[in-house]
Amino acid sequence: MKVAVLGLGLIGGSVGLAARASGAEVAGFDPDPTTLQRAFELGAIEAPASSAQDALDGADVVITAAPIGALAQSVRMALRDAPSNCVVSDVGSTKRSLLRELAAEPQIERFIGGHPLAGSEHGGIEHARADLFQGACWCLTPSGSGALAARLRGLIEGFGASPVEIDAEAHDRLMARMSHLPHVLANALVASTSGLPAPERALARSGPSFRDATRVAGASSAIWTDIYLSNSDMLIAAIDEAVQELREVSRMLGDGDAQALTAWNDRARDRRAGLLA
Amino acid sequence: MKVAVLGLGLIGGSVGLAARASGAEVAGFDPDPTTLQRAFELGAIEAPASSAQDALDGADVVITAAPIGALAQSVRMALRDAPSNCVVSDVGSTKRSLLRELAAEPQIERFIGGHPLAGSEHGGIEHARADLFQGACWCLTPSGSGALAARLRGLIEGFGASPVEIDAEAHDRLMARMSHLPHVLANALVASTSGLPAPERALARSGPSFRDATRVAGASSAIWTDIYLSNSDMLIAAIDEAVQELREVSRMLGDGDAQALTAWNDRARDRRAGLLA
Repeated sequence: MKVAVLGLGLIGGSVGLAARASGAEVAGFDPDPTTLQRAFELGAIEAPASSAQDALDGADVVITAAPIGALAQSVRMALRDAPSNCVVSDVGSTKRSLLRELAAEPQIERFIGGHPLAGSEHGGIEHARADLFQGACWCLTPSGSGALAARLRGLIEGFGASPVEIDAEAHDRLMARMSHLPHVLANALVASTSGLPAPERALARSGPSFRDATRVAGASSAIWTDIYLSNSDMLIAAIDEAVQELREVSRMLGDGDAQALTAWNDRARDRRAGLLA
Repeated sequence: MKVAVLGLGLIGGSVGLAARASGAEVAGFDPDPTTLQRAFELGAIEAPASSAQDALDGADVVITAAPIGALAQSVRMALRDAPSNCVVSDVGSTKRSLLRELAAEPQIERFIGGHPLAGSEHGGIEHARADLFQGACWCLTPSGSGALAARLRGLIEGFGASPVEIDAEAHDRLMARMSHLPHVLANALVASTSGLPAPERALARSGPSFRDATRVAGASSAIWTDIYLSNSDMLIAAIDEAVQELREVSRMLGDGDAQALTAWNDRARDRRAGLLA
């Protein structure tokens, strides 16, 4: 089994490490020569490919881990230049815009959209890990029961992850709430301290809930601006809901309504327990 | 040195354990007999006192760790019943309302408001730890350089914590942003998933940013409703700012304004780095 990885940041590099750990042969390419060289040094790829085409040569599976803005082009190239029995997937954080862009593509039936629910606030090849996907869900757009889908699922299971089929619309709606909105709120929390006098601001670092709640604040703009924009309608809807919720809490506070606040807080406790149980 | 602890939940219990670990004699009382007995069994107090008055007997320092709604009464009793050279403090999460309630109290000069910036989403005596305050800031309302203040500060330093003087207004404004708003936003995040179909909701648990961002969601209503209400004006102001911020992000998304989103995200990154450096 030969896996080609296009784009060797945190996720692409971890795909390379995990694939090699599971016994696959891994070729990889990154347009940045320093990243490519480091990926080789860290063992994420067997040798630095001279081009994306070079990496695709003889591949059974292609995983493209380019930034969202470059994904469609990368998938197109893989469909064109990889062997005709090769399955092509990606790891992009949103799925609808990519599928829309690729809709008219010849051989699109060989593409299965993917998104591993794993990551770190520390991006880049230096933070890549063979076990990054261990225990994680790996979303796949519906792909039927063909041999190509089976090969991709087998690879992902070899990483210790669980493939989960979810259509692009449901995926993006979910991500708006479980990933994109948390990032937006983390940024808003950081912003909320910016008007405080310096001595007070200095104390903020010592709050454990503040530290946790802002862990993902200001994640790489190079990645996140594209994620936000590629899911803007769903994210706007999620933000609108959050604003409604905040207005309601504000009203309860203004009314001094202990009963309503308690009911609201109990609801959050029960819901979280139900979600994360 | 004898320390009396009134209220033996997570914080009171940890004060008892930390004070004993630092060599002090510790008496404690809790109105719930089961909690009192467990505090004794876990070594947070030397023996279960028969009443709050009994625990106060001969105390050099009183720390009351009652819920916010019962704090003023607990401090009043301590000022009245503890020895006349005893310093009285608390661990309440807000400071203005308590100081307002106690303003007319005789001997109020022996009271110093306190708030250790430490805790856990798991409350109760079972989770008390001798090292809970290690490395934490411990806010104290301004208390001058007298012997009573020095005694309290010495005790807190013995817990491995750093006493920080901050006036009640600044404290509450800061807490609205670094503690109370994060709790409100965590609840809002949990609520945002509640309208999703069950199969999608089931996936939410696997998102690392969602899990972290909702860690404090639905914290004990018995404690938090009082915290929110005792700081409602400051919290409403913080919520209003967050709503403004969210509306602005929503507008950038609607406009497809990549430049504004990038600038906003970079600002969050720089601010967090500045805060937590």
